[in-house]
Amino acid sequence: MSGNTLGTLFTVTTFGESHGPAIGCVIDGCPPGMTLSEADIQPELDRRKPGTSRHVTQRQEPDTVEILSGVFEGKTTGTPIALLIRNQDQRSKDYGNLLDTFRPGHADYTYWHKYGIRDPRGGGRSSARLTAPVVGAAAVAKKWLFEQYGTTFKGCMSQLGDIAIPFESWDQVRENPFFAANATMIPQLEEYMDALRKAGDSCGARIDVVAQNVPVGLGEPIYDKLDAEIAYALMGINAVKGVEIGAGFKSVAQKGTEHGDALTPEGFVGNNAGGILGGISTGQDITASIAIKPTSSIRSPRPSIDKAGQATEVETHGRHDPCVGIRATPIAEAMVALVLMDHALRHRAQCGDVKVTTPQIAAQK
Amino acid sequence: MSGNTLGTLFTVTTFGESHGPAIGCVIDGCPPGMTLSEADIQPELDRRKPGTSRHVTQRQEPDTVEILSGVFEGKTTGTPIALLIRNQDQRSKDYGNLLDTFRPGHADYTYWHKYGIRDPRGGGRSSARLTAPVVGAAAVAKKWLFEQYGTTFKGCMSQLGDIAIPFESWDQVRENPFFAANATMIPQLEEYMDALRKAGDSCGARIDVVAQNVPVGLGEPIYDKLDAEIAYALMGINAVKGVEIGAGFKSVAQKGTEHGDALTPEGFVGNNAGGILGGISTGQDITASIAIKPTSSIRSPRPSIDKAGQATEVETHGRHDPCVGIRATPIAEAMVALVLMDHALRHRAQCGDVKVTTPQIAAQK
Amino acid sequence: MSGNTLGTLFTVTTFGESHGPAIGCVIDGCPPGMTLSEADIQPELDRRKPGTSRHVTQRQEPDTVEILSGVFEGKTTGTPIALLIRNQDQRSKDYGNLLDTFRPGHADYTYWHKYGIRDPRGGGRSSARLTAPVVGAAAVAKKWLFEQYGTTFKGCMSQLGDIAIPFESWDQVRENPFFAANATMIPQLEEYMDALRKAGDSCGARIDVVAQNVPVGLGEPIYDKLDAEIAYALMGINAVKGVEIGAGFKSVAQKGTEHGDALTPEGFVGNNAGGILGGISTGQDITASIAIKPTSSIRSPRPSIDKAGQATEVETHGRHDPCVGIRATPIAEAMVALVLMDHALRHRAQCGDVKVTTPQIAAQK
Amino acid sequence: MSGNTLGTLFTVTTFGESHGPAIGCVIDGCPPGMTLSEADIQPELDRRKPGTSRHVTQRQEPDTVEILSGVFEGKTTGTPIALLIRNQDQRSKDYGNLLDTFRPGHADYTYWHKYGIRDPRGGGRSSARLTAPVVGAAAVAKKWLFEQYGTTFKGCMSQLGDIAIPFESWDQVRENPFFAANATMIPQLEEYMDALRKAGDSCGARIDVVAQNVPVGLGEPIYDKLDAEIAYALMGINAVKGVEIGAGFKSVAQKGTEHGDALTPEGFVGNNAGGILGGISTGQDITASIAIKPTSSIRSPRPSIDKAGQATEVETHGRHDPCVGIRATPIAEAMVALVLMDHALRHRAQCGDVKVTTPQIAAQK
Repeated sequence: MSGNTLGTLFTVTTFGESHGPAIGCVIDGCPPGMTLSEADIQPELDRRKPGTSRHVTQRQEPDTVEILSGVFEGKTTGTPIALLIRNQDQRSKDYGNLLDTFRPGHADYTYWHKYGIRDPRGGGRSSARLTAPVVGAAAVAKKWLFEQYGTTFKGCMSQLGDIAIPFESWDQVRENPFFAANATMIPQLEEYMDALRKAGDSCGARIDVVAQNVPVGLGEPIYDKLDAEIAYALMGINAVKGVEIGAGFKSVAQKGTEHGDALTPEGFVGNNAGGILGGISTGQDITASIAIKPTSSIRSPRPSIDKAGQATEVETHGRHDPCVGIRATPIAEAMVALVLMDHALRHRAQCGDVKVTTPQIAAQK
Repeated sequence: MSGNTLGTLFTVTTFGESHGPAIGCVIDGCPPGMTLSEADIQPELDRRKPGTSRHVTQRQEPDTVEILSGVFEGKTTGTPIALLIRNQDQRSKDYGNLLDTFRPGHADYTYWHKYGIRDPRGGGRSSARLTAPVVGAAAVAKKWLFEQYGTTFKGCMSQLGDIAIPFESWDQVRENPFFAANATMIPQLEEYMDALRKAGDSCGARIDVVAQNVPVGLGEPIYDKLDAEIAYALMGINAVKGVEIGAGFKSVAQKGTEHGDALTPEGFVGNNAGGILGGISTGQDITASIAIKPTSSIRSPRPSIDKAGQATEVETHGRHDPCVGIRATPIAEAMVALVLMDHALRHRAQCGDVKVTTPQIAAQK
Repeated sequence: MSGNTLGTLFTVTTFGESHGPAIGCVIDGCPPGMTLSEADIQPELDRRKPGTSRHVTQRQEPDTVEILSGVFEGKTTGTPIALLIRNQDQRSKDYGNLLDTFRPGHADYTYWHKYGIRDPRGGGRSSARLTAPVVGAAAVAKKWLFEQYGTTFKGCMSQLGDIAIPFESWDQVRENPFFAANATMIPQLEEYMDALRKAGDSCGARIDVVAQNVPVGLGEPIYDKLDAEIAYALMGINAVKGVEIGAGFKSVAQKGTEHGDALTPEGFVGNNAGGILGGISTGQDITASIAIKPTSSIRSPRPSIDKAGQATEVETHGRHDPCVGIRATPIAEAMVALVLMDHALRHRAQCGDVKVTTPQIAAQK
Repeated sequence: MSGNTLGTLFTVTTFGESHGPAIGCVIDGCPPGMTLSEADIQPELDRRKPGTSRHVTQRQEPDTVEILSGVFEGKTTGTPIALLIRNQDQRSKDYGNLLDTFRPGHADYTYWHKYGIRDPRGGGRSSARLTAPVVGAAAVAKKWLFEQYGTTFKGCMSQLGDIAIPFESWDQVRENPFFAANATMIPQLEEYMDALRKAGDSCGARIDVVAQNVPVGLGEPIYDKLDAEIAYALMGINAVKGVEIGAGFKSVAQKGTEHGDALTPEGFVGNNAGGILGGISTGQDITASIAIKPTSSIRSPRPSIDKAGQATEVETHGRHDPCVGIRATPIAEAMVALVLMDHALRHRAQCGDVKVTTPQIAAQK
């Protein structure tokens, strides 16, 4: 396979390029009988769409989704659900010298060496725009998981550049363009971003994701462990350079007496495991974090080479996110949701219906 | 699939449990015509086997590998290569109260909830012993990649518990049981481990892996990106809680002007990318790091519950690694090698033969 | 997987229902650098489209294809190629009693039992209309195979109902609506069909397919044998009930001295093997035949039951092919082409580039 | 994938060559909690093993199976079940001129062209001996299907060479070495085989398989239709050249009024469909037939070529089945069982637990 399909039983095959006629995906394996319409999907797309604050790209893409198949009289039929999003912003005008040079930090160099050809319009296939169909597909998965098990997904930015954002409450996430769970930090974050834009530079971010009310028993040892699959899905998001589950890199300096979450009749004490043991969900919250690198497209000129290997300079104009991490929260949630959906079906296949979260799991904050 | 197969074109399907009759794997997709014998595989198995120093488990498992198929007169035939390792240490004697209780930090709880049954002998299928066939399979991949492209794999421990181990040289890795690239640190590491054993506790570790002479162009966007696949493979190793590619979590606090590796006619300047851009190898070194949690099996008694949900206490006797990270270096190398092998074949399928590392890549330390 | 993806390396994922908004597919794995436009695909779609003679359904579906992705400036880029065909004939008006009854010979009964819901509009997902995207995808495969190896595909009807159609020449196939390789038979076939339509009945057909200039070495033993994959692909066409390779069922009564095609320095003597030995192509013509059952939708009333299990009668009105076999020839060619394309890529992955047909294969009629 | 894995959710990955150290397979995806031991598997292997009558090869292979993993205290654990069969008959002595020549009708020519190397010992990987692990794996599938749904599998030879064998009763199948469902035909069949052996020739056979008590709803449209998957599995058996489902090739000459099985409150009237409509099981008996070509290894000398393309003559000595079809019945049953098992799990994944055969299906002979 050429890597454009995500999942094993609940599969999402995407297509499209940033500035081509359309992007979209085919969702295969959705159980039949669930009510579904565009109204279930559009809100998730709107959460990640560009142009919603001055801190993200000012491109205007309505990202209106159309369901082409798989739904009859408002219910899923068990056949493939195709989602189509027409691109509005196709002005492929002049690519400048993009066709002949490689932007540092971008996929230009590698696509060209791999395929011998590349679509330079807005990054082509390697554009973060291609996360839109995935977010759309995940809306279907989220709906099913919620209806079956009450599973929900939350995410927030926990660091912007070198500014840590202490967690206050999930309620605050929706009220600011940073997906920060801390309203008091917003002025500082805005100031930071404004300075960055002025400097023509970009920065990274750290995003945390939590899945709650996850059934116990999801995940396939030995290789398709739930944490391995989540790592795959999250590392596959554009610009991600690191993934942690539970205590993550902090576990290196932990002792065994400290790390291993004890069990009591009331549930687990602590969640260093991030809700996964031996690759299988424990029923606790699943917690993951990702590191997102600074946007590669910056206004400051950078040394590079052209196809002939000659030195040149690249300067990216156009409308780019100075921190791609800002819009990454709904994408990270989407990825985790798709993995859980896939494993819910895989569990049903081999072990029969999954058990809804058991009462012996202790309440978690 | 139930998750026991790794890879898409170069697949490794493992079987076996820690204390069952045998463990092994079936390697499918190996190109024909490569010379291969047990002598190519056994040395890699010996690197990870237990009992080689006082700092790892004192279990004695010779891990002698037998090739059952796929080789005729010393050459691979293109048919499946089955590797068999008979277990020597099967004394399943008394499991103590293991059958009825769940060890904190272990897969006991989740296997039991998922399958309704579990093999308690030495952790059964969830034992780190199951990395042996993978290391064996990776020996085949390493040989092919080296013969085709000169690709090599190196790894070292860069942190033990809270002790950072500064990189000195690859030469020193083989000369100490910690896979540390720094001989002067060894006394400190030994002292730390001795204290840990005495305390009946365990600790975590950080491992770095590097692949060198990697052809440009490996990796499949959008989902089966090379970094996503490496993250999946590494997070799938027992006890791993975090994965980084290139600058990893450090990239969160980097600026775009700092992170994006500039290109010059002599090659890339820096390698924050870890050798991967847009999910495709650049031809630079591929660099990855993992966080390994402290061993869950410790002598100190821990609170837990039994199958009936009643409180109990668990104390693990037996021969366990006080730091599973110590033997993890060859396993991490193996995982990266298997991913590269798989993607080398995937590249050939869609794009024809891969290009060997281009001269325009700058020399890297 | 839910079965909507065909192929392993050259994959075709279809979506859509007969009378929904659109049908289409995503082709993944197409090698980069091939010139491609709608003009390469539309002619194949036109060969199978309805309404081209009085012997097939009078539905008018222009089946105009749009390429949504994967092509830049007229060349394939190596990314997914999405094909979209908007449905023109969506009048879902009244389904009559179709929603509540099961048409004999149709998928109504099984879809309803499997999914608990079904789309009754024109057969929904089970409609033969869904072969259109496959034929479109196969046009891409045919083009690549021809450019690489000179491989071509031909097909004809060799039996209509109980009338055998002796092979005369491939030239005659395009000149009649039956895809018959024998012009002199046409009046008899037309008379037969006219009588059938008058009687409100339907009939079956036998179709032969040949692939020529096939490279030697395609096919993966043990399971994904080339003949097994062709059988899978052909049996998957709507209404197919039997598949033969080479001598097919005639080989039951053959002796070994008769069946096994001898080899001479000039090539094979005979082709009972149908161009495949041990599941791998020999370089000879690949020959396959299929049995297509009579159309299930007939005007004559048939006994059936409703969802409540009560006896009822079903009479199909509307515009149906009295012999679905008439339009099946391009579909059968398409299926064989997709299998060969997939295996050409699989061969490249494991064994490197395939050899073009060797000169030692004797000329075949 | 290199084609050595059968199935999607219940996967069987085989390994081994005819005269190598061992053959075997890894079964992945078996549900946990089923009682299983070698005693469940060995009888199926014994049904296909050689040397049981004078009409089959006189090779003595006890084919003793060992379960290496996946079973704890007599129950499946949900982890991979590895089956190992050591080869007893490895005398690879002299291959005669086999290494340099190609036997007509054999895979010698194609393996050599594909891989550039081949294992000539007893046909190597292409030997029908490799059906043994598949039959072993199918014993596991049969047991599960029977326990869950009461599904059973039967098969018989319906034609030997040009002798049709009218069906009398299933009881008679076990009482003769031909798997003929007609005791009165046995003398004629024996006489035919004796003459064939004397002549140094071989013949083909036709085998029928029936699966009974199949749940309604198994099969995945559009591509992984149940009949398509059965065709794939059966065509993949060594020497098979044709596959029919239900009425098969007879449906070509049928009228729609005759072929489409009417539904009544008491069940279907007739079974031209072979128990499958639209690729999904109806709950009726699934019926399939295969054509097996005459054994290619015959004592009579045949013209052939050597690797240099020079004319030569090949004469096969050794112990070969004069009709490979004689031992094919249990293999054909096994293949159908594996397909149904796989689709039972696939059904559970997407649609939840399957319904056991509904009472409205009419009794079938």
